[in-house]
Amino acid sequence: MRDVIVAVYDGVVLLDVAGPVQALHGSGGYRIRLASVDGRSVHTDIGMPLGSDLALGDVEGPVDTLLIPGYAYPDGDRPDAAFLGRLRDISHRARRVASVCTGALLLAEAGLLDGRRATTHWAACADLASRFPRVAVEPDAIYVRDGLVMTSAGVTAGIDLALALVEEDHGPDIARTVAKYLVVFLQRPGGQSQFSVRGAIATPRHAALRRLLDAVVAEPASNHSLATMAARVAVSERHLTRLFRREVGLTPSQYVERVRVEAAQVLLETSAVGVASVARSCGFGSDETMRRAFLQVLGTTPTAYRQRFRTSHAISFVK
Amino acid sequence: MRDVIVAVYDGVVLLDVAGPVQALHGSGGYRIRLASVDGRSVHTDIGMPLGSDLALGDVEGPVDTLLIPGYAYPDGDRPDAAFLGRLRDISHRARRVASVCTGALLLAEAGLLDGRRATTHWAACADLASRFPRVAVEPDAIYVRDGLVMTSAGVTAGIDLALALVEEDHGPDIARTVAKYLVVFLQRPGGQSQFSVRGAIATPRHAALRRLLDAVVAEPASNHSLATMAARVAVSERHLTRLFRREVGLTPSQYVERVRVEAAQVLLETSAVGVASVARSCGFGSDETMRRAFLQVLGTTPTAYRQRFRTSHAISFVK
Repeated sequence: MRDVIVAVYDGVVLLDVAGPVQALHGSGGYRIRLASVDGRSVHTDIGMPLGSDLALGDVEGPVDTLLIPGYAYPDGDRPDAAFLGRLRDISHRARRVASVCTGALLLAEAGLLDGRRATTHWAACADLASRFPRVAVEPDAIYVRDGLVMTSAGVTAGIDLALALVEEDHGPDIARTVAKYLVVFLQRPGGQSQFSVRGAIATPRHAALRRLLDAVVAEPASNHSLATMAARVAVSERHLTRLFRREVGLTPSQYVERVRVEAAQVLLETSAVGVASVARSCGFGSDETMRRAFLQVLGTTPTAYRQRFRTSHAISFVK
Repeated sequence: MRDVIVAVYDGVVLLDVAGPVQALHGSGGYRIRLASVDGRSVHTDIGMPLGSDLALGDVEGPVDTLLIPGYAYPDGDRPDAAFLGRLRDISHRARRVASVCTGALLLAEAGLLDGRRATTHWAACADLASRFPRVAVEPDAIYVRDGLVMTSAGVTAGIDLALALVEEDHGPDIARTVAKYLVVFLQRPGGQSQFSVRGAIATPRHAALRRLLDAVVAEPASNHSLATMAARVAVSERHLTRLFRREVGLTPSQYVERVRVEAAQVLLETSAVGVASVARSCGFGSDETMRRAFLQVLGTTPTAYRQRFRTSHAISFVK
């Protein structure tokens, strides 16, 4: 049995704990204990109390896995210095460390993600990247492994992360059995960017660049070639490309493509407008261009995207 | 705020509670209370205690939604007559009743599924059907609505069910926002039969039929036409069809197709055998026939199925 310590605190997201813990438990291969700063129950983000097995300070000897769930970001009570100190202490004695969702921000605050690749909930990716420049954020991943540190995307991605741990420790057959029992995929099709909403890109400090980004969002169908955009902010194309790389984390054309994809996502989700019309009104030259952009950015096609996120009118009718 | 009562008891599956509760909470539209028979904490299937807000007997007046999570089937402590009586009592005052996973068996024991369509965890579908013949079981559904009673498939399908409730009560935009926050699809592609394992079909009482079913499983690639099978058990084709309908719930050809699909699933999951060879060795005339059968039975193609359930060798290598 491998020893797993789940670090809990007030504001912890219930499903960030329950998902991974249920998956690990399902494999039969782990002794799982919840530990809080003082060993007492904590309040989850939804109010319901969550029991604790011991205090973090009472965790002795080596630990197999230290698991840090997320908190209701940005409203949750962020754990204090004492909590972060305990995390650091146990992490030095742990074979590996894993975070779920916004738990990655706690790992980063404890200095445990410096120089590493990591992911977090899509809504927190930009913040993780800007507050912790030494962390290489991968916004589209469901989970990221870098050495002995693993981080997962938002909420239910913690289940995917736990299945990966089970597969590593107990083999693919047991991981597959657990996944089937939970009625989830052992490997999800596509990354978490399918689930992100508009505005996941951080706001740049450079004022002219900020206005340019807003202009693209306001009219995604207009001409936003590199030359046009450079002329608009009165800088060279090369300088604009450098600005984008530094402040947005994308090339200018990648940014325009993202904005167009996001505009198309809204139309596909909320309207019955045909795919070709969606492509035109969002600035794609053709529906084939839009299709390629969707596959590139979201790992799925416009038609499949619409099917997944369409709302079920059947249900409303039965009401 | 709509009043939700979640009926909890010893052996309840933690994730069956946490998933739906997190989704309902995320919409901001529900007052959620956990209720146990005596108002005290219960032990979840994984040992961790779960607090309770009140006793089921103290739930007063009308209730919007009564939610019954599942228990670790068949090992869990099945709730007793007092619990079932409380469920019946509250259900009469509830606008609607919903179960997650094996919670459907509790609803059935309380008589609340008689004459209704329903689903449950794939591993419990056959048992639900045989123990409660007045329930029309839909083994492939992620969730089933029949009037004011909703039942969901296994474990994480409870999240899908909760999103459907949110959509019904608060509209598609809020449901979509909650789904994105949880990093799940608002509508899953495909049903739960994608996750089921071999042997989900109940064992028939008719001995010759049982031997015939086993023979098909043993050699899915052999000739299993209706004429061949009828000759094998020495009955008319019409009688064999009637036997299949009554004892298996499928036509003979549907059964053969299912078995072939399941055999192909195993090969696709665990081997690198090409799709055409898989089709041949599992009794499909061509890969196109296999493709059509996969779409019919699992709602996905052999290639997509392999991608979803393949194991990640990359992870094992890093170990």
